[in-house]
Amino acid sequence: MKSKIITLSVLLLFSANTFAQDTKLTDYVDPRIGSEGLGRVFIGPSCPYGMVKPSPDCTPRPNSGWLPMPEQVDGFSQVHVSGTGGGPKYGNILVMPFGDGMDRTKHIDHRKYETIKLGYYTTQFQASGIQTEITTAPKASFYRFTYPKDSLKSLAIDAGFFLGESPVPDAREAQQFVGSEIQIISDREVIGYTRIRGGWNNGRAYTVYFYAETDKPFVNTATWKGDKITNEKFQYDSHQKTGALLRFNSSEEVVQLKVGISFLSSLKARQNAHSDIPHWSFETAHQQLLTQWEDLLQRIEISPRTPEAQKRMFYTGLYHTMIMPVDRSGENPLWADNEPYYDDFYAIWDTYRTSSPLITLIDPKRETDIVRSLINIYKRDGYMPDARSGNCNGRTQGGSNAEIVIADAFVKGLEGIDYELGLQAMLKDATVDPGDRHEAEGRGGLTHYLQLGYIPYGIPRAGNRTVEYSYCDYAIASVAKGLGKEDLYQHYLKQSGNWKNLWRDDYEHAGAKGFILPRDEKGNWLDEITFGKSNIQKPTFTYTPVTFEGPWYTPWWDMFFYEASSWEYSLSIPHDVPGLIEKCGGAEKFEARLDIFFDRGFFNVNNEPSFLSPCLYHWLGKPYRSSDRIHEIIAKNYNDGPIGLPGNDDSGAMSSWLAFHMMGLYPNAGQDYYLINTPLLEETIFRLDNGKTFKISTQGLSDKNRYIHVTLNGETYPYSAIRHKDIITGGELILKMGKKPSEWGKQLLLNEENEKL
Amino acid sequence: MKSKIITLSVLLLFSANTFAQDTKLTDYVDPRIGSEGLGRVFIGPSCPYGMVKPSPDCTPRPNSGWLPMPEQVDGFSQVHVSGTGGGPKYGNILVMPFGDGMDRTKHIDHRKYETIKLGYYTTQFQASGIQTEITTAPKASFYRFTYPKDSLKSLAIDAGFFLGESPVPDAREAQQFVGSEIQIISDREVIGYTRIRGGWNNGRAYTVYFYAETDKPFVNTATWKGDKITNEKFQYDSHQKTGALLRFNSSEEVVQLKVGISFLSSLKARQNAHSDIPHWSFETAHQQLLTQWEDLLQRIEISPRTPEAQKRMFYTGLYHTMIMPVDRSGENPLWADNEPYYDDFYAIWDTYRTSSPLITLIDPKRETDIVRSLINIYKRDGYMPDARSGNCNGRTQGGSNAEIVIADAFVKGLEGIDYELGLQAMLKDATVDPGDRHEAEGRGGLTHYLQLGYIPYGIPRAGNRTVEYSYCDYAIASVAKGLGKEDLYQHYLKQSGNWKNLWRDDYEHAGAKGFILPRDEKGNWLDEITFGKSNIQKPTFTYTPVTFEGPWYTPWWDMFFYEASSWEYSLSIPHDVPGLIEKCGGAEKFEARLDIFFDRGFFNVNNEPSFLSPCLYHWLGKPYRSSDRIHEIIAKNYNDGPIGLPGNDDSGAMSSWLAFHMMGLYPNAGQDYYLINTPLLEETIFRLDNGKTFKISTQGLSDKNRYIHVTLNGETYPYSAIRHKDIITGGELILKMGKKPSEWGKQLLLNEENEKL
Repeated sequence: MKSKIITLSVLLLFSANTFAQDTKLTDYVDPRIGSEGLGRVFIGPSCPYGMVKPSPDCTPRPNSGWLPMPEQVDGFSQVHVSGTGGGPKYGNILVMPFGDGMDRTKHIDHRKYETIKLGYYTTQFQASGIQTEITTAPKASFYRFTYPKDSLKSLAIDAGFFLGESPVPDAREAQQFVGSEIQIISDREVIGYTRIRGGWNNGRAYTVYFYAETDKPFVNTATWKGDKITNEKFQYDSHQKTGALLRFNSSEEVVQLKVGISFLSSLKARQNAHSDIPHWSFETAHQQLLTQWEDLLQRIEISPRTPEAQKRMFYTGLYHTMIMPVDRSGENPLWADNEPYYDDFYAIWDTYRTSSPLITLIDPKRETDIVRSLINIYKRDGYMPDARSGNCNGRTQGGSNAEIVIADAFVKGLEGIDYELGLQAMLKDATVDPGDRHEAEGRGGLTHYLQLGYIPYGIPRAGNRTVEYSYCDYAIASVAKGLGKEDLYQHYLKQSGNWKNLWRDDYEHAGAKGFILPRDEKGNWLDEITFGKSNIQKPTFTYTPVTFEGPWYTPWWDMFFYEASSWEYSLSIPHDVPGLIEKCGGAEKFEARLDIFFDRGFFNVNNEPSFLSPCLYHWLGKPYRSSDRIHEIIAKNYNDGPIGLPGNDDSGAMSSWLAFHMMGLYPNAGQDYYLINTPLLEETIFRLDNGKTFKISTQGLSDKNRYIHVTLNGETYPYSAIRHKDIITGGELILKMGKKPSEWGKQLLLNEENEKL
Repeated sequence: MKSKIITLSVLLLFSANTFAQDTKLTDYVDPRIGSEGLGRVFIGPSCPYGMVKPSPDCTPRPNSGWLPMPEQVDGFSQVHVSGTGGGPKYGNILVMPFGDGMDRTKHIDHRKYETIKLGYYTTQFQASGIQTEITTAPKASFYRFTYPKDSLKSLAIDAGFFLGESPVPDAREAQQFVGSEIQIISDREVIGYTRIRGGWNNGRAYTVYFYAETDKPFVNTATWKGDKITNEKFQYDSHQKTGALLRFNSSEEVVQLKVGISFLSSLKARQNAHSDIPHWSFETAHQQLLTQWEDLLQRIEISPRTPEAQKRMFYTGLYHTMIMPVDRSGENPLWADNEPYYDDFYAIWDTYRTSSPLITLIDPKRETDIVRSLINIYKRDGYMPDARSGNCNGRTQGGSNAEIVIADAFVKGLEGIDYELGLQAMLKDATVDPGDRHEAEGRGGLTHYLQLGYIPYGIPRAGNRTVEYSYCDYAIASVAKGLGKEDLYQHYLKQSGNWKNLWRDDYEHAGAKGFILPRDEKGNWLDEITFGKSNIQKPTFTYTPVTFEGPWYTPWWDMFFYEASSWEYSLSIPHDVPGLIEKCGGAEKFEARLDIFFDRGFFNVNNEPSFLSPCLYHWLGKPYRSSDRIHEIIAKNYNDGPIGLPGNDDSGAMSSWLAFHMMGLYPNAGQDYYLINTPLLEETIFRLDNGKTFKISTQGLSDKNRYIHVTLNGETYPYSAIRHKDIITGGELILKMGKKPSEWGKQLLLNEENEKL
């Protein structure tokens, strides 16, 4: 059954703030969700896309700085990332209040209690009894220390601290110290910097400059270099760790501190501190942060009848999606121009699937800026990043997925982007082998990919690189078509079928037939694979579709697949699901295969390659089966507690996956539609950037009443997906819920051509 | 005839300072030699390998800053390079005295006169009447300004100036402004920085920090950002140009200024200024510079009877050899370790042939440090540089010639170098394609080179890359053999014959047969070559052995050969001259070919590819013919005037070529011997680092008496080359000169095996 989609030009069914007038949505954001276990989210205060992210650092070990009590606290540093795996990055410019003499550089203490809220953190230390409160502005953090009456009032600023320090020299993925400097420039001001290289992305040295200002004067000061504490006012950079010890008058029980941060200079950090926080009111600073978030969160309103836990999960999901990447416009030490500059794409491999599409819905101007910054990085650095941190591209995990981000922006009509230049950037990825820089950017193994149509075993991550490059090729085809470049379109559309060249048709495993499997340069399929390049030892092991990690002698990054098995990657062809179904032997066998995948535990909830997999039933005309899987996955793996995320949040990737599914939508990045699923939320209202409103309403939703029948703007809507333009035109999608699957959703879209471009 | 070489263990025939007691060798250094025309040497004061090189900048155009009068002077900046071609680099932190109001940022003036001496520069300006004198320490420059009595006494510090600014956005090889900052921190101190990217090597952004201190207080100050001058004490970095205007009391006719420079921070620049020049005596600073040079120059003494012009040419040659690369140990913003750090290898393609070997003879500990820094750059950055500037590898012109520098150090027994790690660095070049970074480092086109044994036409610089890679392969073979790695040795020795794969045997031109010529991927020789990748236009042109530059539509860097013709590169096989002679049809034809080469003008005196060519007669047993060619070349092209160098000095490459030939020695880099030629100097004494002395004496040398017969340490020495170990063992090489060529030199070395490893 087909019906014409009616789009109403201005459908203002809902006035702004219909039911959220007295509610602060920010109350539902709980930074603790996903902070423990695998989630690793950042728990400190952060503005949207905020450059400064102050947080306690509980040992130099954790990626986000924080660890649950009773772990020690080394102090509070100003720059962090959220939800990452691998070696830590940042953790720079540590401040720590203390209550005794000026004879030590370290003042590690333990927490008596702590409170973690949106934009606010506080703790009291056991030994010193000092309370620390923290809030932040985009480029400057704000501290309030309350000292016990009878203690000394002191503060340490450590320019040598950083996360992930390793006793192993040059340890891979460990940050490495390069240099630091400290200077007390008045009785209330300290400046300096820390310079660090390495970390997860093996990046070049980056420098974090600071300007620290207190509201009370220092009555005594010292500085240190290495182990030596002196009464010098400064310590110049001699590639050693430096810091300052500051003493306030004993009558000052409350001392406030601003720490401006810059990637250009201490003077710029001063400017940032003074322009971001031109006052000494902690409450005002906190309130300004809350206002920024409230504005963003109100762009998606949900029914006030939503259970509290779901409200917390949903708005925290939005929050986590919008703390990364980081807006560093005006803070780029590498080049000067008028384009926006974002850093800490960490990694696009994680975020392109759901974070970018969610930002596009909430804040399209922001996504436009992000895309522009990606294209500008290509222009200046030579390649777009797949990951980038500390002003340095790296690392690649599989595809060159910025291409999918551009395609997603293009098909969704984001304006203000030079797509011709964007296409150049995409083509650079697809045509110029990055050689030795393949871990940092571009498409490693590209020469083989272009020669053979696949990447042969032996080149690191040959499997998922082949699969992902073919997806990225589809993104290129899509933009080329839109720009009227027919030759390019045809070329890359054809190339986007390259994943089939690693499809071993006759290989059977656990009841399924056909898998992406290792193949050598001559075209032979490999069952026993050799590892390493030694001429003497030739260890081999058997590679199967469930091989996830290799044996002890195989470095993780050099495996056939990155962070997933063949079972997962063999279902991860988002740009050609119909082609995949055909390769799997048709609809019936594909459905059986999906069931095996989920029921036998081959699905891995805690990583991105399987993000789309629960939705694959849509392509079989059975969206209700997708919804069942999704609801089951969420119920089992997500909640509103500290271990509420089943894997690394990866800069908001997991959180945005959840947020989409709670609304009943799921994007297929690089394509212009959202799959429709049974939402968890009974009502969602998008207050769109263009002034229009789009509402998703459910009728009769309950655990049992979970099967969908749909109308869009009053008309029956038989398709299981909705196009982006139908959302931004405004309107209402009504999901009538029933106890049994209906005829709804036998077809994905009105014009399925689109799926094949 | 063969005779045994006798090496005397300690041959102290000469006491230190035999005949140079009252003479200052520094008097013979004239920085003006090679400063005009193509030479482009740096004319300002510089310490040996000095990081700071202050000089007038006469417009932002010239590579070394300086241009001859009557060109304008914009001011005096602190960092320069010497003798380079292509787009300029550096020219940072410009200071300029002026005598009028504080209402302009530019104070361009013209010179009344100028004096240029070793370590000293002075000029008086026409309009302002102010005299400027300059000297320098390694990391801080020193200025003395003498103002006219009746003028205002002012000084501008411009943190926004740099060389090579282009009105074309993002012009290739043009430096690009990134940011700057200025801060007046007391009544005698100003700090700040400039941040610039690009330039000849298309490098990433580098930052030059400064600390400027005067001996007289400022009585009035202003700062600027962009066009706006204010009385603010500082201007933070907002990606705009900044500077300061300083006024001194009108009674102060003489104002002195130190400018400490650092690549880490302004505080480190302050430290450098204070530790390098802990006083205010201009004369003391100048004297200290002279002492450093005197110590180095005295390591090679020449006969006091040498004509003045030759003394000036020789010692200036040594001087130019030792101002580059630049010692930046302790100034590395990229990593911290205990290895030496050198920058401004500009380029090794130029300097490996003669500069490195000359430094090895004069100051082996310095060359050891330089080699260590190259290997450490590989360890930290991934590849050794072929060129490096502003802390960034780039650009490659042909081979990965740091390999030859390591081989040269290895065969000459330099100690304190980790040659195992060095071999790893060499093998990285030879095995890992740098991909898109091929302009910056590694071996571009390596994949094809390894597959085909040559680089096919279409890949930039296919011709000279093939020729040079085979030479570099020989360097690898040499070190591998020395380290006992027989397999590697055999592999790379074989690969070092790859130049033959581009040798077109039957091609005749101007009486010679056989040339290195373009070949496509399928093995076809190309006469008409297509340029560009357009699908519509397919312009072609005829490629011949005299094609030097292509037609207008061929970017220089994309030609078959870099900066030379096939005539030149086809004679540039320094590692296998016997193989080359064979390819050219034997000794007789080779000699005829050499004569055509020189007599018909195919030899190009102004660039490095033909550096060894005049010596090729040695391999025919006719070293006297080499000497005749060399003396003719020097007479025609070199002198002790400002246009005394026939090409870009290229960081001392031309100068060291000259210095070697004046002594009658010429190195073949990567091999352990020096060819013996008729010297220009009648006596040369090496005061070696090991305490020993080696003397080259001539008997009866004159224009007519120019043919050699040789004894070494009292024994007849029939060979036309001498091994490095025979020099550093100490002794005396006596060249008896006659009117006709003798039987001497029919053979190159006692054991010619060595030439083939």
